[in-house]
This record gives sequence, structure tokens and C-alpha cells, in this order.
Amino acid sequence: MRVSGRGLSMPASPIRRLIPYANKAKERGISVYHLNIGDPDVPTPKVILKAIKGFKQKVLSYGPSEGLKELRKAISDYFGDYGIDVEPENVFITTGGSEAIFFVFSAICDPGDEVIIPEPFYTNYNGFANMAGVKIKPLTLSVENGFHLPPKDDIKHLITDKTRAILICSPNNPTGTVYSREEIQSIIDLALEYDLWVLSDEVYREFVFDGRKHTSVLEFREAAERTVVMDSISKRFSCCGARIGFIVTRNRELWSTLLKFGQARLCPPTIEQMGAIAGFKHWKEFMPGIIDEYRLRRDVVFEELENIEGAFTLKPEGAFYTVVKLPVDDAEEFIKWMLTEFNINGKTTMLAPASGFYSTAGTGLDEARIAYVLNQDKLRDAMNILREGLKVYAGNKG
Amino acid sequence: MRVSGRGLSMPASPIRRLIPYANKAKERGISVYHLNIGDPDVPTPKVILKAIKGFKQKVLSYGPSEGLKELRKAISDYFGDYGIDVEPENVFITTGGSEAIFFVFSAICDPGDEVIIPEPFYTNYNGFANMAGVKIKPLTLSVENGFHLPPKDDIKHLITDKTRAILICSPNNPTGTVYSREEIQSIIDLALEYDLWVLSDEVYREFVFDGRKHTSVLEFREAAERTVVMDSISKRFSCCGARIGFIVTRNRELWSTLLKFGQARLCPPTIEQMGAIAGFKHWKEFMPGIIDEYRLRRDVVFEELENIEGAFTLKPEGAFYTVVKLPVDDAEEFIKWMLTEFNINGKTTMLAPASGFYSTAGTGLDEARIAYVLNQDKLRDAMNILREGLKVYAGNKG
Repeated sequence: MRVSGRGLSMPASPIRRLIPYANKAKERGISVYHLNIGDPDVPTPKVILKAIKGFKQKVLSYGPSEGLKELRKAISDYFGDYGIDVEPENVFITTGGSEAIFFVFSAICDPGDEVIIPEPFYTNYNGFANMAGVKIKPLTLSVENGFHLPPKDDIKHLITDKTRAILICSPNNPTGTVYSREEIQSIIDLALEYDLWVLSDEVYREFVFDGRKHTSVLEFREAAERTVVMDSISKRFSCCGARIGFIVTRNRELWSTLLKFGQARLCPPTIEQMGAIAGFKHWKEFMPGIIDEYRLRRDVVFEELENIEGAFTLKPEGAFYTVVKLPVDDAEEFIKWMLTEFNINGKTTMLAPASGFYSTAGTGLDEARIAYVLNQDKLRDAMNILREGLKVYAGNKG
Repeated sequence: MRVSGRGLSMPASPIRRLIPYANKAKERGISVYHLNIGDPDVPTPKVILKAIKGFKQKVLSYGPSEGLKELRKAISDYFGDYGIDVEPENVFITTGGSEAIFFVFSAICDPGDEVIIPEPFYTNYNGFANMAGVKIKPLTLSVENGFHLPPKDDIKHLITDKTRAILICSPNNPTGTVYSREEIQSIIDLALEYDLWVLSDEVYREFVFDGRKHTSVLEFREAAERTVVMDSISKRFSCCGARIGFIVTRNRELWSTLLKFGQARLCPPTIEQMGAIAGFKHWKEFMPGIIDEYRLRRDVVFEELENIEGAFTLKPEGAFYTVVKLPVDDAEEFIKWMLTEFNINGKTTMLAPASGFYSTAGTGLDEARIAYVLNQDKLRDAMNILREGLKVYAGNKG
């Protein structure tokens, strides 16, 4: 029996595809520091878990396809706290940020249409583009200038008559880069000039360090009909397993189209929406502590990277990732080697190969993504193991 | 800004698209009996809610893309109770039965490929086919013989070189028909003869009445590599809002392809999987009572339908639906009329127009689906209102 062409061409997750090596390491009794996946160890705020466990209804029934009204209102209020005018009618609840990406791709692109995305980018854009038949046109960025955007005239050559949108992510997964207001303004200007949608993944909105301020595409009123935010509570509220995301759009036709996709899958999970409501009502109480913790972790990772000879990255500005250039030819081979051949006192460190975050073949081969999702002591130990591993690996190769 | 062609062609849910009329009726103070949607009022078994509320971990983190191991094992054991050999490795957990349908369509079909489905069928097959670019070839059935399948020689003419699969659903939504072993054998034979997949929606497996026995496609070992079950706990465990479904396949290539789709969306909701585990461990304790209740409701609906002049259906054999021929030209207009113009003591009844369950245009216009998801007293009242409404409607038209 044959599977489909799209099934065959579907990329395996570069974040998850080395998991079998990690599992085998664990079977041998090795403990693995998972810096490969953005699954935070920060406890889910109690107020959220309490709301989930406090579910009172006797029947766990379908909710509205667009999500619970109270949650859409809570998200509207949350944007209000940022001085951004978002009505509950602009909010569409999805099953995780994943579904937000897929629905938006499907709603604005037909098979063969193109979306411009700065690379390296969140690897699952690739997966959903494949599922929706969308072609990603990568705008290749460089670790040397901290993965910031080029001037808009250096982006124009990627625009064709098939281009439907530019997708940005700031603070960025995987690079940790936070775009300035001027960088985002230049994307908005391009979209206005070429009649494109601007899709903005703002999952890490609060995760900005050193006094930086996040800029949302929703702040650009001149582009109100063409900006779309894709978002999720997974990282913000440290509840990746809840599968609650959302889309913000002021474009009514897009919203109605999303509703049709949403009706097909009936509704997002009901109980976790209760948790999300609690999270958006209390986020100002618990978020500052969480951001402080990530900033300290960022400092540990960056400090340790500076001590690794031949490694290079600029200081991450936000999110909880960084892409680092390693002193190896093939980061994926090195990561496999760390899982199969190397350990210190029964412990090893797992990173994600950055090549999977590029869609240009052969790019980023010597880079890896580090997710700093463990506490500072564990991070310090994991980074030490990485440094020692790189030394031994270099010796073996030499 | 333009939305996509696929967005424009996406069908609105025929079950949900009349909801605005119901909402307006409610704003006028009218109470609406919702027989239009399969959202049961049967309490979610306590053992399931207890498992959900008993979530002990501090972080609500990602689970495996293929679902929790313990849940896959529990489902394997559940099939074991039926004497059907399913290994945990054959089970893939999805976010609702909806995702199961979409993943299977995407994994076996490329855009333009065809799937044969007896109609009327579960309307969301249309939505997912549209999203995946799959063409549905309907096999039109008739209320006169209780929507049973024709001999296989009368199905062959629908098979082309684009046909990839035959999809069946038994017990059937929307008709309530339960296919005999012989009917399913004939589908298996066709699939073997023409090298097709057999997709089987077995969400209502336990919902069979009057001593009937459910037949699963998994029982046909000669087709083990080509049979795929799409399933969900929503109806079985009365927890539609949990969004937990699953796929069963013994085909390893298909399973690996599903895993790639699954990795893109990361994982199904974690907490509800705990609930599902409890459900599959205890289903034999609470299911018989639930099925008895639905049988009694079926009896109420069928008895009341026999008292409605000009209405016709055969006695539903399973699930909790029936498609009934009504004495009207256009059931959708009649349903709108019931919501806007008619009530008895401030109450009215809402059905789903059956035309939305057919993909052949102009078919089933005088039919409606009744979901008997309310308790017997309410059902009796709802059916009385329907009968009186039909009388008044006929008078108005005359």
C-alpha cells in the first residue's frame, strides 16, 4: 500500500527525530540534558492548574469552534494591557500555536503559493507548509549580525507573483533575536507596497531582556487588514501540553474563513481553555518572575558559550533559545556522537541541529539550537559537558 | 486582502451554520432543543473526570507526538476485549477524531486523489477532504432500505485510477445504520481487488442495539496492511470537549507518515489523555448503562416519528442518529422556520438539514438528521414540537 507523495515529502521534526538516540542513551543508564526542545521546566502557574482541576460541569462537551467567549475576552483585555486595541471578535482560539500556523497558511495560500520567511526559522513552519502545499521562500540571515533583518531592498528580490505573505517571528525561535520597531516597520512597508499579508508569530512576546520592548505587528494601524498574529500560551504560561493557541486578525473575511476550518475540527480542548482564562487574568502576577529566571539562564548559557573555543553567537535578546556556530563540520553528527559515545559521570547533553531550521539545503550545518529550559545548575552542568564533548570530538577527528 | 481559494471553497458546517438562528431565538427568550448536534448530555463518567482533575505534575508539558504510551497500551487492551489483536505500536493518538480523519486523508492521498464514501456521510469528511485537496466520490444510499450498502458490483463504477480508498462508517453517523459482516466483507473484497485502502470510522463501535454485533475492519486479517480505523473517545465516553481520538493501523509505513504529521503539531492534549486512560480501563463498567439509555431514546424518537404523517425512516440500528424524510420540500428552510417563526410554550426544536451530509448537490433536500442526545422526557417534548411544527408549516404552505 502506498502512502501519499505529501506524506513521503513531509519532513521529520529535526527537534524530535534524534529522540531515538536519546532513548537508547537512557536505556544504557545515561542521563540526558534536553536542550534540544523548548519544553520548559518552569512550573505551570498554580492559578492555571487550579482552574483546570476546578472544572465543575458534569459533561465535558463541545465548546464553540472559535473558542470560549470568556477566553477571547480575556485575550482582548491582555492586549489592552499592552495598549493594543484587539476586540474579542478579532480573536480565534486554536488547538495550540501549531493549528494557528496551519489554519493561517491554509486560509491565505493555495497550493503553490509562496510565503517569505527569514531563516533559520521555527522548523514546524516547514511541516505545515508541506501539509498545505505552500512553498517557503527563505530569507537567509546570519549569526554574525545576530540574525537581524537586512534592509527591505534586500528582501524585494524574493517577491514573485506567487508571494502571499511575509512571516516573521520576534522574539525569534530559534535565534533569540528581537526585531526593532524599524525592522518590523520595513516589513509592514513591503507588505503595503506589494499587497502582502504579514504573519507574525508572537509566542515569546514577554520574553525580552535587557530593557528591550516587544513590537507587535498589531501596532501598525496602516496595515490593520493585513496583519495576522499567531500565538500560543504554551511558552508564556509554561503549559505546552495544554494545546491552546490563538490567532488575532482584524480582517473579517479571514476570520470567517478560519471559522470554517475551525468548524471542521469542531473545537479546541475545553478544560484547558479554562486554564488559559485564569492565565490571562493573572499573567502580570507571575510573568515577571518567569522572565527573570529565563534572563538568568540566558546569562549562564552565553557565559558558558564564551568559554567554548571556536563557538560563536551574539547575546540572545529574547525568547529562550540561541543558535550557536560550533567548531564542528556537521552539528547533527556531533549531536548523535554526544548521545552515543560521550558522557561525563553518566550524563550527556542534547542539542537540536540547526540545519533543520533552514530550508536552504546545506545551510547552518555547523550550527545548533540551544533551548535554555533547565534550571541554572543543570544548565551549567549541561554546558560543561558540551564543552568537554567538543574537545574530545575535536581530538578524535584530529 | 484575498483569502485562499481553498478557504473560499471550504464548506461551512451544516450542523453549525444554523446556530446564529438558534442564538437569535434564544435572545428572544425561546428555549431550543438541540437535536442538531451530536453533543450528548450523558454525564462524562466520573472515573474520567477524576483522572483529569487528579493531574499531579507540576509542569503541563509536551507528551509524545504519537500519544502517551500508557494510553496506547490501554487502547490495545480494549481491542483485546473484543478479541481483536491490536498492538500499542499500531495505535496513534490524535487531537480528536477530526485530526484522525485529516491525518489519514493527508497520509494516503495527494491533491486530486479520490475517496469513495457512501452518502449521506459525516459532514466533516467534506471539510477535511477540502483542506487536503481530496475529491470525495459519493455512493448515494437511500432511506428506503435503511441506508444499507448495495452489492459490490454496484460500487465498482465509482473506482478510477485516482481512487485511493473506500471510507465507511458503521454504526453510521448520520443514518444510524449498522453494516453487516457481509457488507463489510464486500468492501474488503473490493479493496483487495482494486488495491485500495479501507478507512473505517468506528467512533460508535459500542452503540449497537437489538442484539446486533459490531464488525470492525480490523477483523479481516487478509487486509491487515490496508485497513485503517479512525476513532475517538468523544461519543463513547461522552466527552466531546476532550479532543482525544486515535488511529489504528498495522501498516508501518502509514504509521511513520502519521508520526511526521504528528510531530509538526507536537502532541495531543496531555491531561485529557489521562482521562482517556481511565476510560479505557473502566469502560466495561459504565458503557452498558450508557448504551441502554441511548436505546431507550432511540425507541422514543422512532415511536414519535411513526406518529408524524409523511415522515419516514427505518428503525435506527446503532449510533445515536437517524436521517428522516420529512413532509417538506426543503428541510433547511423548515428548520430555519422552526427557529424563527415557531414555538410551543416558548420552546422549539432544532434539527440538522441532511443535505449537508450529501456531497451530491440537490440530494436529501427533504431529509433531516436527528441526534437523540437529550433525555427521554426532553426528547418526547422536542418530537412533539417537531410534529406540531410540521402541521403548522404544511398549513402555511398550503
